[in-house]
Amino acid sequence: MSLAIISPGRNPQVWIDALTFHQPDIDIQVYPDIDRPEDVEMALLWQHPPGYLNTLPNLRLISSLGAGVDHILSDSAVQESMPIVRIVDEKLTWSMTNYVIMGVLNFHRQIARYQSDQKKKVWDMSNPEIPVKVGVMGVGALGGDVLDKLNYLGFPVFGFGFSEKIDFPFPYFSKNQLQDFLSQINVLVCLLPLTPETESILNLDLFKKCNPGTYLINVARGKHLVEEDLIPALNKGYLSGALLDVYRKEPLPTNHPFWEEDRIQLTPHIASVTNPQAAAPQIIENFRRLKANQPLLNLVNRQRGY
Amino acid sequence: MSLAIISPGRNPQVWIDALTFHQPDIDIQVYPDIDRPEDVEMALLWQHPPGYLNTLPNLRLISSLGAGVDHILSDSAVQESMPIVRIVDEKLTWSMTNYVIMGVLNFHRQIARYQSDQKKKVWDMSNPEIPVKVGVMGVGALGGDVLDKLNYLGFPVFGFGFSEKIDFPFPYFSKNQLQDFLSQINVLVCLLPLTPETESILNLDLFKKCNPGTYLINVARGKHLVEEDLIPALNKGYLSGALLDVYRKEPLPTNHPFWEEDRIQLTPHIASVTNPQAAAPQIIENFRRLKANQPLLNLVNRQRGY
Repeated sequence: MSLAIISPGRNPQVWIDALTFHQPDIDIQVYPDIDRPEDVEMALLWQHPPGYLNTLPNLRLISSLGAGVDHILSDSAVQESMPIVRIVDEKLTWSMTNYVIMGVLNFHRQIARYQSDQKKKVWDMSNPEIPVKVGVMGVGALGGDVLDKLNYLGFPVFGFGFSEKIDFPFPYFSKNQLQDFLSQINVLVCLLPLTPETESILNLDLFKKCNPGTYLINVARGKHLVEEDLIPALNKGYLSGALLDVYRKEPLPTNHPFWEEDRIQLTPHIASVTNPQAAAPQIIENFRRLKANQPLLNLVNRQRGY
Repeated sequence: MSLAIISPGRNPQVWIDALTFHQPDIDIQVYPDIDRPEDVEMALLWQHPPGYLNTLPNLRLISSLGAGVDHILSDSAVQESMPIVRIVDEKLTWSMTNYVIMGVLNFHRQIARYQSDQKKKVWDMSNPEIPVKVGVMGVGALGGDVLDKLNYLGFPVFGFGFSEKIDFPFPYFSKNQLQDFLSQINVLVCLLPLTPETESILNLDLFKKCNPGTYLINVARGKHLVEEDLIPALNKGYLSGALLDVYRKEPLPTNHPFWEEDRIQLTPHIASVTNPQAAAPQIIENFRRLKANQPLLNLVNRQRGY
């Protein structure tokens, strides 16, 4: 019984090291050198080649190497009955929250303005703070932590999601209340899972409904944003700026207009990076549970898509 | 009995509006048009002309227009027996804390590096976080709130001050333990009051004791920093960068080398600005208590200097 790592274009060694640190005798095979495909019963996937899983006749469990599973669900070779688990990592939540708070505070305290003033040697003390109200789309483990922490820092916060919520600790808006949600806020954070319902949700039609000058932070998936709508939304004043960590195509192509747009701050998909040392124990525990036919940790609900 | 506002170079109208909003019949005189100096029993000061108070024969109380009183204590015309009060304003604390957290997170998540990468169209996902341990010099209302909030966000925090503290909720170092304090941390935040003991405390000798690459945030007073020591400390690698909000001379002179130094981020003394609407009630309450000979709010201890 072996575990396959299928993560082309990334160095698998950090994962091998972390997994064998926690279970030295584990049998790991790494794509593309999987020479005993019939032994593979669990596969760890990140951006695997679509259809490749058909070559693994005894596969019984798929684990994402991150929090998201959209890269798995989008492969039609993954059968409906195949269980999928994902990584739930507190460190991942911690990093994501700190990244989002950084983005909110930089907008609130106008750090870009002061950087520009510094270049021009301008001393302008006027209006040092933009009052902010922060809306978070997606209120799972990640979005919920962002809401908690920003609330603790004293900012008004608002949540939005596709399901109904009862007893949510902050004002909450569900899918038919998008306009109400957007009218409350001037910072919009996207932390939605990527599903057919949420793909391309950040588009010109949504931006038009925002308070003028709303600031956008997308740390979810590149496919949430209709990229060609962003600069027009800035030009129209629907948005005043954006902090983006994810893109439709990564690495972001060098001819992409975002690189040269001052109102858009880019980071290279580093808001929250799964830490192999932190994630290895739950992968090994699921491998053990698979052998023992016990309930799996962090099982994905395919109806919800996460 | 009248209240004098002596704040040359600043628009006094916001203060007049806030004070008269809360007490419409208050008798206010504004420098330089104080034509009944014998009526003035309380003076609100910000950067007043040294010695000017000698023209107010019946002055009985001085209030700073901010949290700091160094601008008052440095005037030898202010007699030892004169009571001095200062503004304690939760909004002021809130702004200061958010500014400091912004600085800590921008260092932790290396926003300057990603801005530089964006200009060069470089996609570099390596080492996205610098682990940080934050030391705060000055653990009063402002420093204490910074420690609390950063601790809540999950960062290790350390306090330093000149007095001994018992039962302090975080690791605490007093004046003879400066080296121990500095060895714990890689982000150094100065929130000390300005006193003879703390003036010029941020100097090359202190920077040499820091962990290499420590990041400096000075939001207290310009005179805490020996400004000519900062760029040498960056060049030697004792420090890796700095966020400064205060300077020896403000506005910062246009020929000052800080303006053109990429490793130093400047803001124009806006980290925390006293809000007249929030501060007016405590000023009026002290004016009332002065008349009634009752104990004053937020009285400064001149031995401590704050």
